[in-house]
Amino acid sequence: MDNQILDYLQKISNLTEEKMDLHLPPSENRPKRLHEAMRYSMFAGGKRLRPALAYAAFEVFGGEGEDIFYATSALEMFHTFSLIHDDLPCMDDDDFRRGKPTAHKQYDEATAVLSGDALCILAFELIARTGIPECTTTIAKALGTSGMIGGQIIDIESEGKTVDLDTVRFIHYYKTAALIEASLVLGAQIAKAPQSQIDAIQEYGKDIGLAFQVVDDILDIESTTEQLGKDAGSDIARGKATYPSILGIEKSKEVARELHDKAIDSLENISGDTTILKQIAHFIVTRLH
Amino acid sequence: MDNQILDYLQKISNLTEEKMDLHLPPSENRPKRLHEAMRYSMFAGGKRLRPALAYAAFEVFGGEGEDIFYATSALEMFHTFSLIHDDLPCMDDDDFRRGKPTAHKQYDEATAVLSGDALCILAFELIARTGIPECTTTIAKALGTSGMIGGQIIDIESEGKTVDLDTVRFIHYYKTAALIEASLVLGAQIAKAPQSQIDAIQEYGKDIGLAFQVVDDILDIESTTEQLGKDAGSDIARGKATYPSILGIEKSKEVARELHDKAIDSLENISGDTTILKQIAHFIVTRLH
Repeated sequence: MDNQILDYLQKISNLTEEKMDLHLPPSENRPKRLHEAMRYSMFAGGKRLRPALAYAAFEVFGGEGEDIFYATSALEMFHTFSLIHDDLPCMDDDDFRRGKPTAHKQYDEATAVLSGDALCILAFELIARTGIPECTTTIAKALGTSGMIGGQIIDIESEGKTVDLDTVRFIHYYKTAALIEASLVLGAQIAKAPQSQIDAIQEYGKDIGLAFQVVDDILDIESTTEQLGKDAGSDIARGKATYPSILGIEKSKEVARELHDKAIDSLENISGDTTILKQIAHFIVTRLH
Repeated sequence: MDNQILDYLQKISNLTEEKMDLHLPPSENRPKRLHEAMRYSMFAGGKRLRPALAYAAFEVFGGEGEDIFYATSALEMFHTFSLIHDDLPCMDDDDFRRGKPTAHKQYDEATAVLSGDALCILAFELIARTGIPECTTTIAKALGTSGMIGGQIIDIESEGKTVDLDTVRFIHYYKTAALIEASLVLGAQIAKAPQSQIDAIQEYGKDIGLAFQVVDDILDIESTTEQLGKDAGSDIARGKATYPSILGIEKSKEVARELHDKAIDSLENISGDTTILKQIAHFIVTRLH
Protein backbone atom coordinates (compact mmCIF):
# COMPACT_ATOMS: atom_id res chain seq x y z
CA MET A 1 0.00 0.00 0.00
CA ASP A 2 2.78 2.41 0.88
CA ASN A 3 4.26 2.13 -2.58
CA GLN A 4 0.88 2.70 -4.17
CA ILE A 5 0.34 6.03 -2.39
CA LEU A 6 3.91 7.13 -3.06
CA ASP A 7 3.42 6.36 -6.75
CA TYR A 8 0.17 8.31 -6.74
CA LEU A 9 1.75 11.33 -5.08
CA GLN A 10 4.65 11.18 -7.52
CA LYS A 11 2.29 11.03 -10.49
CA ILE A 12 0.30 14.06 -9.32
CA SER A 13 3.49 15.90 -8.42
CA ASN A 14 4.81 15.40 -11.97
CA LEU A 15 1.53 16.53 -13.52
CA THR A 16 1.36 19.55 -11.21
CA GLU A 17 4.91 20.64 -12.00
CA GLU A 18 4.31 20.28 -15.73
CA LYS A 19 1.27 22.59 -15.49
CA MET A 20 2.98 25.02 -13.11
CA ASP A 21 5.66 25.50 -15.73
CA LEU A 22 2.96 26.48 -18.24
CA HIS A 23 1.11 28.74 -15.79
CA LEU A 24 4.14 30.66 -14.49
CA PRO A 25 5.44 33.57 -16.59
CA PRO A 26 8.63 32.65 -18.53
CA SER A 27 11.80 33.89 -16.83
CA GLU A 28 12.92 35.45 -20.14
CA ASN A 29 10.02 37.92 -19.88
CA ARG A 30 10.37 41.26 -18.11
CA PRO A 31 10.58 41.60 -15.07
CA LYS A 32 13.07 38.73 -15.43
CA ARG A 33 14.49 38.64 -11.91
CA LEU A 34 11.02 38.52 -10.35
CA HIS A 35 9.89 35.76 -12.71
CA GLU A 36 13.08 33.85 -11.89
CA ALA A 37 12.45 34.27 -8.16
CA MET A 38 8.87 33.00 -8.51
CA ARG A 39 10.12 29.92 -10.35
CA TYR A 40 12.98 29.42 -7.90
CA SER A 41 10.59 29.11 -4.95
CA MET A 42 7.97 27.14 -6.87
CA PHE A 43 10.47 24.54 -8.07
CA ALA A 44 12.41 24.24 -4.79
CA GLY A 45 10.84 20.85 -4.11
CA GLY A 46 8.01 19.82 -1.83
CA LYS A 47 5.55 16.96 -1.79
CA ARG A 48 2.83 18.88 -3.71
CA LEU A 49 0.40 17.52 -1.13
CA ARG A 50 -2.29 20.19 -1.67
CA PRO A 51 -2.50 19.56 -5.43
CA ALA A 52 -2.66 15.82 -4.70
CA LEU A 53 -5.58 16.36 -2.32
CA ALA A 54 -7.45 18.52 -4.83
CA TYR A 55 -6.85 15.97 -7.57
CA ALA A 56 -7.87 13.03 -5.37
CA ALA A 57 -11.16 14.76 -4.43
CA PHE A 58 -11.75 15.60 -8.09
CA GLU A 59 -11.29 11.93 -9.01
CA VAL A 60 -13.42 10.59 -6.16
CA PHE A 61 -16.34 12.69 -7.43
CA GLY A 62 -15.79 11.71 -11.06
CA GLY A 63 -14.56 15.11 -12.23
CA GLU A 64 -13.81 15.57 -15.92
CA GLY A 65 -11.77 18.01 -17.98
CA GLU A 66 -8.60 20.00 -17.43
CA ASP A 67 -9.80 22.81 -15.12
CA ILE A 68 -8.56 20.93 -12.08
CA PHE A 69 -5.01 21.86 -13.11
CA TYR A 70 -5.76 25.56 -12.59
CA ALA A 71 -6.49 24.59 -9.00
CA THR A 72 -3.42 22.36 -8.56
CA SER A 73 -1.08 25.11 -9.82
CA ALA A 74 -2.89 27.76 -7.80
CA LEU A 75 -2.78 25.74 -4.56
CA GLU A 76 0.96 25.28 -4.87
CA MET A 77 1.32 29.02 -5.59
CA PHE A 78 -0.72 30.01 -2.54
CA HIS A 79 1.29 27.61 -0.38
CA THR A 80 4.61 28.91 -1.74
CA PHE A 81 3.48 32.54 -1.29
CA SER A 82 2.85 31.79 2.39
CA LEU A 83 6.22 30.05 2.83
CA ILE A 84 8.13 32.94 1.20
CA HIS A 85 6.49 35.51 3.46
CA ASP A 86 6.75 33.29 6.59
CA ASP A 87 10.49 32.89 6.02
CA LEU A 88 11.13 36.67 5.91
CA PRO A 89 13.44 38.19 8.55
CA CYS A 90 10.48 40.03 10.14
CA MET A 91 8.58 36.73 10.55
CA ASP A 92 10.27 33.35 11.14
CA ASP A 93 13.63 34.55 9.77
CA ASP A 94 14.56 31.24 8.15
CA ASP A 95 17.64 30.93 5.94
CA PHE A 96 16.89 27.48 4.55
CA ARG A 97 13.82 25.71 3.28
CA ARG A 98 13.91 22.20 1.80
CA GLY A 99 17.71 22.37 1.98
CA LYS A 100 17.94 25.47 -0.24
CA PRO A 101 18.40 29.16 0.62
CA THR A 102 15.04 30.86 1.22
CA ALA A 103 13.86 33.46 -1.33
CA HIS A 104 15.16 36.51 0.55
CA LYS A 105 18.57 34.83 0.97
CA GLN A 106 18.80 33.73 -2.65
CA TYR A 107 17.52 37.10 -3.97
CA ASP A 108 16.71 39.93 -1.55
CA GLU A 109 13.86 40.92 0.74
CA ALA A 110 12.06 43.20 -1.72
CA THR A 111 12.11 40.48 -4.38
CA ALA A 112 10.90 37.94 -1.83
CA VAL A 113 7.94 40.08 -0.71
CA LEU A 114 6.96 40.89 -4.29
CA SER A 115 7.40 37.36 -5.62
CA GLY A 116 5.09 36.13 -2.85
CA ASP A 117 2.56 38.81 -3.76
CA ALA A 118 2.81 37.95 -7.44
CA LEU A 119 2.25 34.22 -6.80
CA CYS A 120 -0.84 34.98 -4.71
CA ILE A 121 -2.27 37.24 -7.44
CA LEU A 122 -1.51 34.80 -10.26
CA ALA A 123 -3.08 31.97 -8.25
CA PHE A 124 -6.35 33.91 -7.93
CA GLU A 125 -6.27 34.51 -11.68
CA LEU A 126 -5.93 30.75 -12.28
CA ILE A 127 -8.76 29.94 -9.88
CA ALA A 128 -10.99 32.40 -11.76
CA ARG A 129 -10.27 30.49 -14.97
CA THR A 130 -12.35 27.60 -13.60
CA GLY A 131 -15.32 29.92 -14.11
CA ILE A 132 -16.71 28.91 -10.67
CA PRO A 133 -16.88 31.95 -8.34
CA GLU A 134 -17.44 29.62 -5.34
CA CYS A 135 -13.90 28.31 -5.82
CA THR A 136 -12.51 31.81 -5.22
CA THR A 137 -14.65 32.15 -2.11
CA THR A 138 -13.44 28.79 -0.76
CA ILE A 139 -9.79 29.65 -1.20
CA ALA A 140 -10.04 33.27 -0.04
CA LYS A 141 -11.67 32.18 3.23
CA ALA A 142 -9.01 29.54 3.77
CA LEU A 143 -6.22 32.07 3.20
CA GLY A 144 -7.54 35.19 4.93
CA THR A 145 -7.69 36.37 8.53
CA SER A 146 -10.03 33.48 9.42
CA GLY A 147 -7.55 31.15 7.76
CA MET A 148 -3.86 30.94 6.96
CA ILE A 149 -2.95 34.61 7.55
CA GLY A 150 -4.90 34.63 10.83
CA GLY A 151 -3.01 31.52 11.98
CA GLN A 152 0.34 32.99 11.03
CA ILE A 153 -0.15 36.23 12.99
CA ILE A 154 -1.36 34.44 16.12
CA ASP A 155 1.54 32.00 15.78
CA ILE A 156 3.98 34.94 15.76
CA GLU A 157 2.18 36.74 18.57
CA SER A 158 2.24 33.59 20.72
CA GLU A 159 6.00 33.01 20.45
CA GLY A 160 7.65 32.77 23.85
CA LYS A 161 4.29 33.01 25.64
CA THR A 162 2.47 30.31 27.59
CA VAL A 163 -0.59 29.38 25.56
CA ASP A 164 -3.27 26.78 26.13
CA LEU A 165 -4.21 23.85 23.94
CA ASP A 166 -7.17 25.75 22.49
CA THR A 167 -4.89 28.45 21.13
CA VAL A 168 -2.55 25.84 19.62
CA ARG A 169 -5.52 24.12 18.01
CA PHE A 170 -6.68 27.50 16.67
CA ILE A 171 -3.24 28.25 15.21
CA HIS A 172 -2.96 24.78 13.68
CA TYR A 173 -6.39 24.84 12.14
CA TYR A 174 -6.01 28.32 10.71
CA LYS A 175 -2.37 28.13 9.67
CA THR A 176 -2.32 24.67 8.10
CA ALA A 177 -5.58 22.74 8.15
CA ALA A 178 -7.71 25.45 6.49
CA LEU A 179 -5.73 25.32 3.21
CA ILE A 180 -5.57 21.51 3.24
CA GLU A 181 -9.35 21.38 3.76
CA ALA A 182 -9.85 23.97 0.98
CA SER A 183 -7.73 21.90 -1.42
CA LEU A 184 -10.17 19.01 -1.11
CA VAL A 185 -13.20 21.29 -1.34
CA LEU A 186 -11.81 22.92 -4.51
CA GLY A 187 -11.34 19.52 -6.15
CA ALA A 188 -14.91 18.59 -5.22
CA GLN A 189 -16.30 21.94 -6.46
CA ILE A 190 -14.54 21.61 -9.80
CA ALA A 191 -15.89 18.05 -10.11
CA LYS A 192 -19.36 19.58 -9.46
CA ALA A 193 -20.00 17.33 -6.46
CA PRO A 194 -23.29 17.90 -4.56
CA GLN A 195 -23.06 20.07 -1.43
CA SER A 196 -23.57 17.15 1.00
CA GLN A 197 -20.53 15.42 -0.50
CA ILE A 198 -18.49 18.64 -0.37
CA ASP A 199 -19.37 18.94 3.33
CA ALA A 200 -18.27 15.35 3.97
CA ILE A 201 -14.89 15.77 2.30
CA GLN A 202 -14.40 19.05 4.16
CA GLU A 203 -14.79 17.15 7.47
CA TYR A 204 -12.16 14.67 6.36
CA GLY A 205 -9.91 17.55 5.26
CA LYS A 206 -10.13 19.35 8.57
CA ASP A 207 -8.99 16.26 10.48
CA ILE A 208 -6.13 15.28 8.19
CA GLY A 209 -5.08 18.96 8.12
CA LEU A 210 -4.85 19.06 11.91
CA ALA A 211 -3.11 15.67 11.95
CA PHE A 212 -0.61 16.99 9.41
CA GLN A 213 0.40 19.89 11.64
CA VAL A 214 0.60 17.77 14.81
CA VAL A 215 2.91 15.38 12.93
CA ASP A 216 4.96 18.36 11.69
CA ASP A 217 5.44 19.52 15.28
CA ILE A 218 6.60 16.03 16.32
CA LEU A 219 8.97 15.77 13.34
CA ASP A 220 10.51 19.11 14.30
CA ILE A 221 11.63 17.44 17.53
CA GLU A 222 12.38 13.88 16.42
CA SER A 223 14.13 14.52 13.10
CA THR A 224 17.58 15.78 12.20
CA THR A 225 18.11 19.03 10.28
CA GLU A 226 19.27 16.94 7.31
CA GLN A 227 16.06 14.91 7.25
CA LEU A 228 13.89 18.04 7.44
CA GLY A 229 15.83 20.23 5.00
CA LYS A 230 15.34 23.05 7.51
CA ASP A 231 16.49 23.64 11.07
CA ALA A 232 15.26 20.85 13.36
CA GLY A 233 14.25 21.89 16.86
CA SER A 234 13.49 25.41 15.64
CA ASP A 235 10.02 25.42 17.23
CA ILE A 236 11.52 24.88 20.68
CA ALA A 237 14.30 27.40 20.04
CA ARG A 238 11.68 30.04 19.21
CA GLY A 239 9.31 29.14 22.02
CA LYS A 240 6.62 28.20 19.50
CA ALA A 241 3.32 26.90 20.78
CA THR A 242 3.06 23.27 19.61
CA TYR A 243 1.23 20.09 20.59
CA PRO A 244 4.36 18.37 21.96
CA SER A 245 5.26 21.45 24.02
CA ILE A 246 1.90 21.21 25.79
CA LEU A 247 1.03 17.50 25.69
CA GLY A 248 4.41 15.82 25.27
CA ILE A 249 5.48 13.59 22.38
CA GLU A 250 3.57 10.41 23.20
CA LYS A 251 0.24 12.12 23.82
CA SER A 252 0.71 14.15 20.61
CA LYS A 253 1.21 10.96 18.61
CA GLU A 254 -2.01 9.66 20.11
CA VAL A 255 -3.81 12.86 19.02
CA ALA A 256 -2.49 12.41 15.48
CA ARG A 257 -3.77 8.83 15.38
CA GLU A 258 -7.17 9.89 16.73
CA LEU A 259 -7.48 12.58 14.07
CA HIS A 260 -6.55 9.99 11.45
CA ASP A 261 -9.30 7.66 12.67
CA LYS A 262 -11.85 10.48 12.72
CA ALA A 263 -10.90 11.41 9.15
CA ILE A 264 -11.39 7.82 8.02
CA ASP A 265 -14.81 7.76 9.70
CA SER A 266 -15.95 10.86 7.73
CA LEU A 267 -15.21 9.00 4.51
CA GLU A 268 -18.19 6.75 5.22
CA ASN A 269 -20.44 9.64 4.17
CA ILE A 270 -18.82 9.79 0.75
CA SER A 271 -20.25 7.72 -2.08
CA GLY A 272 -17.42 6.72 -4.38
CA ASP A 273 -14.08 4.94 -4.13
CA THR A 274 -12.24 6.59 -1.25
CA THR A 275 -9.23 4.21 -1.20
CA ILE A 276 -6.78 6.93 -2.15
CA LEU A 277 -8.11 9.30 0.54
CA LYS A 278 -7.63 6.57 3.15
CA GLN A 279 -4.08 6.05 1.95
CA ILE A 280 -3.34 9.77 2.07
CA ALA A 281 -4.58 9.97 5.68
CA HIS A 282 -2.39 6.99 6.54
CA PHE A 283 0.58 8.54 4.73
CA ILE A 284 0.26 11.76 6.71
CA VAL A 285 0.33 9.99 10.06
CA THR A 286 3.01 7.44 9.15
CA ARG A 287 5.49 10.16 8.23
CA LEU A 288 6.10 9.74 11.97
CA HIS A 289 7.84 6.41 11.75
CA MET B 1 -17.18 72.74 -12.55
CA ASP B 2 -14.38 72.19 -10.06
CA ASN B 3 -16.85 72.09 -7.20
CA GLN B 4 -19.04 69.62 -9.03
CA ILE B 5 -16.24 67.07 -9.43
CA LEU B 6 -15.07 67.59 -5.85
CA ASP B 7 -18.62 66.97 -4.63
CA TYR B 8 -18.83 63.84 -6.79
CA LEU B 9 -15.53 62.50 -5.45
CA GLN B 10 -16.62 63.25 -1.91
CA LYS B 11 -19.94 61.47 -2.42
CA ILE B 12 -18.25 58.32 -3.79
CA SER B 13 -15.59 58.49 -1.09
CA ASN B 14 -18.28 58.51 1.62
CA LEU B 15 -20.16 55.63 0.00
CA THR B 16 -16.93 53.66 -0.45
CA GLU B 17 -15.88 54.13 3.18
CA GLU B 18 -19.30 53.11 4.44
CA LYS B 19 -19.09 49.84 2.46
CA MET B 20 -15.43 49.26 3.37
CA ASP B 21 -16.46 49.33 7.01
CA LEU B 22 -18.98 46.56 6.31
CA HIS B 23 -16.57 44.49 4.21
CA LEU B 24 -13.59 44.64 6.60
CA PRO B 25 -13.55 42.19 9.53
CA PRO B 26 -14.48 43.89 12.85
CA SER B 27 -11.44 44.77 14.96
CA GLU B 28 -13.06 43.04 17.96
CA ASN B 29 -12.70 39.70 16.16
CA ARG B 30 -9.61 37.53 16.50
CA PRO B 31 -6.88 38.20 15.26
CA LYS B 32 -7.63 41.67 16.67
CA ARG B 33 -4.31 43.39 16.08
CA LEU B 34 -4.26 42.33 12.42
CA HIS B 35 -7.84 43.48 11.88
CA GLU B 36 -6.97 46.78 13.55
CA ALA B 37 -3.93 47.18 11.32
CA MET B 38 -6.01 46.52 8.19
CA ARG B 39 -8.51 49.17 9.26
CA TYR B 40 -5.75 51.60 10.25
CA SER B 41 -4.28 51.57 6.75
CA MET B 42 -7.65 51.49 4.98
CA PHE B 43 -8.96 54.50 6.90
CA ALA B 44 -5.76 56.56 6.79
CA GLY B 45 -7.30 58.90 4.21
CA GLY B 46 -6.85 59.13 0.48
CA LYS B 47 -8.96 60.42 -2.37
CA ARG B 48 -10.59 57.02 -3.12
CA LEU B 49 -9.90 57.76 -6.78
CA ARG B 50 -10.03 54.15 -7.98
CA PRO B 51 -13.48 53.52 -6.46
CA ALA B 52 -14.66 56.81 -8.01
CA LEU B 53 -13.43 55.69 -11.43
CA ALA B 54 -15.15 52.31 -11.13
CA TYR B 55 -18.36 53.95 -9.99
CA ALA B 56 -18.24 56.58 -12.74
CA ALA B 57 -17.78 53.89 -15.42
CA PHE B 58 -20.61 51.88 -13.87
CA GLU B 59 -22.89 54.93 -14.07
CA VAL B 60 -21.88 55.89 -17.62
CA PHE B 61 -22.95 52.43 -18.80
CA GLY B 62 -26.20 52.48 -16.83
CA GLY B 63 -25.19 49.85 -14.27
CA GLU B 64 -27.75 48.76 -11.69
CA GLY B 65 -27.63 47.05 -8.31
CA GLU B 66 -25.19 46.96 -5.42
CA ASP B 67 -22.43 44.70 -6.76
CA ILE B 68 -20.37 47.73 -7.77
CA PHE B 69 -19.59 48.26 -4.08
CA TYR B 70 -17.74 44.95 -3.91
CA ALA B 71 -15.47 46.44 -6.58
CA THR B 72 -15.08 49.84 -4.90
CA SER B 73 -14.06 48.24 -1.58
CA ALA B 74 -11.81 45.75 -3.32
CA LEU B 75 -10.03 48.42 -5.39
CA GLU B 76 -9.22 50.43 -2.30
CA MET B 77 -7.99 47.24 -0.58
CA PHE B 78 -5.72 46.32 -3.50
CA HIS B 79 -4.37 49.88 -3.59
CA THR B 80 -3.76 49.91 0.18
CA PHE B 81 -2.11 46.46 0.05
CA SER B 82 0.36 47.84 -2.50
CA LEU B 83 1.07 50.97 -0.44
CA ILE B 84 1.70 48.97 2.76
CA HIS B 85 4.18 46.67 1.00
CA ASP B 86 5.82 49.54 -0.95
CA ASP B 87 6.43 51.44 2.29
CA LEU B 88 8.30 48.51 3.94
CA PRO B 89 11.95 49.03 4.95
CA CYS B 90 13.10 46.57 2.26
CA MET B 91 11.28 48.60 -0.43
CA ASP B 92 10.79 52.39 -0.30
CA ASP B 93 11.35 52.52 3.48
CA ASP B 94 8.81 55.30 4.11
CA ASP B 95 7.90 56.34 7.66
CA PHE B 96 4.92 58.51 6.76
CA ARG B 97 2.01 58.22 4.37
CA ARG B 98 -0.78 60.81 4.19
CA GLY B 99 0.71 62.47 7.27
CA LYS B 100 0.42 59.33 9.43
CA PRO B 101 2.96 56.68 10.41
CA THR B 102 3.10 53.88 7.83
CA ALA B 103 1.80 50.44 8.85
CA HIS B 104 5.18 48.98 9.84
CA LYS B 105 5.92 52.09 11.98
CA GLN B 106 2.51 52.09 13.65
CA TYR B 107 2.54 48.30 14.21
CA ASP B 108 5.55 46.22 13.13
CA GLU B 109 6.93 44.73 9.94
CA ALA B 110 5.33 41.29 10.32
CA THR B 111 1.91 42.85 10.90
CA ALA B 112 2.44 45.16 7.93
CA VAL B 113 3.33 42.32 5.55
CA LEU B 114 0.42 40.17 6.75
CA SER B 115 -2.15 42.98 6.76
CA GLY B 116 -1.20 43.75 3.14
CA ASP B 117 -1.57 40.06 2.27
CA ALA B 118 -4.92 39.87 4.07
CA LEU B 119 -6.28 42.93 2.24
CA CYS B 120 -5.27 41.47 -1.12
CA ILE B 121 -6.95 38.14 -0.32
CA LEU B 122 -10.12 39.75 1.01
CA ALA B 123 -10.31 41.99 -2.06
CA PHE B 124 -10.26 38.95 -4.37
CA GLU B 125 -13.04 37.43 -2.28
CA LEU B 126 -15.14 40.58 -2.75
CA ILE B 127 -14.50 40.65 -6.50
CA ALA B 128 -15.68 37.03 -6.71
CA ARG B 129 -18.95 38.07 -5.07
CA THR B 130 -19.85 39.94 -8.28
CA GLY B 131 -20.19 36.47 -9.84
CA ILE B 132 -18.30 37.67 -12.95
CA PRO B 133 -15.05 35.67 -13.38
CA GLU B 134 -13.83 38.23 -15.99
CA CYS B 135 -13.63 40.82 -13.20
CA THR B 136 -11.08 38.68 -11.38
CA THR B 137 -9.08 38.28 -14.58
CA THR B 138 -9.11 42.05 -15.18
CA ILE B 139 -7.85 42.86 -11.73
CA ALA B 140 -5.32 40.01 -11.49
CA LYS B 141 -3.68 41.09 -14.76
CA ALA B 142 -3.54 44.72 -13.57
CA LEU B 143 -1.90 43.69 -10.30
CA GLY B 144 0.50 40.94 -11.37
CA THR B 145 3.95 40.88 -12.93
CA SER B 146 2.57 42.50 -16.10
CA GLY B 147 0.98 45.15 -13.91
CA MET B 148 1.48 46.77 -10.55
CA ILE B 149 3.94 44.27 -9.04
CA GLY B 150 5.98 44.30 -12.27
CA GLY B 151 6.13 48.11 -12.17
CA GLN B 152 7.18 48.12 -8.52
CA ILE B 153 10.10 45.71 -8.98
CA ILE B 154 11.44 47.56 -12.04
CA ASP B 155 11.03 50.84 -10.18
CA ILE B 156 13.18 49.49 -7.32
CA GLU B 157 15.72 47.94 -9.70
CA SER B 158 16.06 51.24 -11.59
CA GLU B 159 16.83 53.38 -8.53
CA GLY B 160 20.09 55.28 -8.93
CA LYS B 161 20.51 54.07 -12.51
CA THR B 162 20.26 56.08 -15.73
CA VAL B 163 17.13 54.90 -17.48
CA ASP B 164 15.49 56.00 -20.72
CA LEU B 165 12.02 57.43 -21.21
CA ASP B 166 10.70 54.06 -22.41
CA THR B 167 11.60 52.43 -19.10
CA VAL B 168 9.97 55.27 -17.14
CA ARG B 169 6.85 54.92 -19.27
CA PHE B 170 6.91 51.15 -18.63
CA ILE B 171 7.22 51.67 -14.85
CA HIS B 172 4.46 54.29 -14.84
CA TYR B 173 2.07 52.24 -16.90
CA TYR B 174 2.61 49.07 -14.89
CA LYS B 175 2.90 50.61 -11.44
CA THR B 176 0.04 53.10 -11.58
CA ALA B 177 -1.90 53.24 -14.83
CA ALA B 178 -2.74 49.52 -15.00
CA LEU B 179 -4.83 49.61 -11.81
CA ILE B 180 -6.50 52.91 -12.74
CA GLU B 181 -7.40 51.43 -16.13
CA ALA B 182 -8.67 48.25 -14.46
CA SER B 183 -10.88 50.28 -12.10
CA LEU B 184 -12.79 51.69 -15.07
CA VAL B 185 -12.95 48.32 -16.81
CA LEU B 186 -14.34 46.70 -13.64
CA GLY B 187 -17.08 49.31 -13.40
CA ALA B 188 -17.96 48.73 -17.06
CA GLN B 189 -17.91 44.93 -16.66
CA ILE B 190 -20.20 45.06 -13.63
CA ALA B 191 -22.55 47.36 -15.60
CA LYS B 192 -22.48 44.68 -18.32
CA ALA B 193 -21.27 47.13 -20.98
CA PRO B 194 -20.55 45.69 -24.47
CA GLN B 195 -16.90 44.83 -25.22
CA SER B 196 -16.42 47.76 -27.65
CA GLN B 197 -17.40 50.18 -24.88
CA ILE B 198 -15.14 48.43 -22.37
CA ASP B 199 -12.27 48.82 -24.84
CA ALA B 200 -13.01 52.53 -25.26
CA ILE B 201 -13.04 53.25 -21.55
CA GLN B 202 -9.86 51.22 -21.16
CA GLU B 203 -8.13 53.58 -23.64
CA TYR B 204 -9.29 56.56 -21.62
CA GLY B 205 -8.11 54.85 -18.42
CA LYS B 206 -4.64 54.16 -19.74
CA ASP B 207 -4.11 57.82 -20.61
CA ILE B 208 -5.46 59.31 -17.39
CA GLY B 209 -3.48 56.67 -15.47
CA LEU B 210 -0.25 57.75 -17.13
CA ALA B 211 -1.18 61.42 -16.66
CA PHE B 212 -1.81 60.74 -12.97
CA GLN B 213 1.69 59.38 -12.44
CA VAL B 214 3.39 62.18 -14.43
CA VAL B 215 1.53 64.71 -12.27
CA ASP B 216 2.58 62.77 -9.14
CA ASP B 217 6.21 63.04 -10.21
CA ILE B 218 5.85 66.80 -10.72
CA LEU B 219 4.08 67.26 -7.38
CA ASP B 220 6.92 65.43 -5.64
CA ILE B 221 9.19 68.27 -6.79
CA GLU B 222 6.89 71.29 -6.61
CA SER B 223 5.04 70.63 -3.34
CA THR B 224 6.05 70.88 0.27
CA THR B 225 6.15 67.85 2.57
CA GLU B 226 3.14 69.29 4.40
CA GLN B 227 1.08 69.51 1.22
CA LEU B 228 1.94 65.93 0.22
CA GLY B 229 1.60 64.29 3.65
CA LYS B 230 4.79 62.39 2.81
CA ASP B 231 8.38 63.46 2.15
CA ALA B 232 8.56 65.89 -0.78
CA GLY B 233 11.57 65.55 -3.07
CA SER B 234 11.94 61.89 -2.11
CA ASP B 235 12.07 60.74 -5.75
CA ILE B 236 15.18 62.85 -6.38
CA ALA B 237 16.75 61.82 -3.07
CA ARG B 238 16.36 58.15 -4.09
CA GLY B 239 17.48 58.63 -7.67
CA LYS B 240 14.06 57.46 -8.88
CA ALA B 241 13.39 57.41 -12.61
CA THR B 242 10.68 60.01 -13.25
CA TYR B 243 9.40 62.14 -16.12
CA PRO B 244 10.81 65.40 -14.70
CA SER B 245 14.23 63.80 -14.14
CA ILE B 246 14.42 62.97 -17.85
CA LEU B 247 12.33 65.69 -19.54
CA GLY B 248 12.38 68.53 -17.02
CA ILE B 249 9.33 70.08 -15.33
CA GLU B 250 7.91 72.13 -18.20
CA LYS B 251 8.07 69.35 -20.76
CA SER B 252 6.55 66.93 -18.22
CA LYS B 253 3.60 69.28 -17.69
CA GLU B 254 3.13 69.32 -21.45
CA VAL B 255 3.10 65.50 -21.52
CA ALA B 256 0.43 65.47 -18.79
CA ARG B 257 -1.72 67.89 -20.80
CA GLU B 258 -1.28 65.82 -23.98
CA LEU B 259 -2.33 62.65 -22.16
CA HIS B 260 -5.35 64.52 -20.82
CA ASP B 261 -6.35 65.58 -24.35
CA LYS B 262 -5.87 62.05 -25.67
CA ALA B 263 -8.06 60.68 -22.88
CA ILE B 264 -10.81 63.18 -23.72
CA ASP B 265 -10.62 62.14 -27.37
CA SER B 266 -11.19 58.45 -26.47
CA LEU B 267 -14.45 59.44 -24.79
CA GLU B 268 -15.90 60.18 -28.22
CA ASN B 269 -16.19 56.42 -28.75
CA ILE B 270 -18.39 56.06 -25.70
CA SER B 271 -22.15 56.34 -26.03
CA GLY B 272 -23.53 57.83 -22.83
CA ASP B 273 -23.02 60.92 -20.71
CA THR B 274 -19.27 61.19 -20.17
CA THR B 275 -19.31 64.57 -18.39
CA ILE B 276 -18.00 63.12 -15.14
CA LEU B 277 -15.17 61.28 -16.90
CA LYS B 278 -14.11 64.56 -18.56
CA GLN B 279 -14.13 66.26 -15.20
CA ILE B 280 -12.07 63.50 -13.61
CA ALA B 281 -9.44 63.79 -16.35
CA HIS B 282 -9.37 67.54 -15.82
CA PHE B 283 -9.13 67.09 -12.04
CA ILE B 284 -6.14 64.77 -12.38
CA VAL B 285 -4.18 67.25 -14.48
CA THR B 286 -5.18 70.38 -12.55
CA ARG B 287 -3.87 68.95 -9.28
CA LEU B 288 -0.79 70.64 -10.74
CA HIS B 289 -1.94 74.21 -10.13
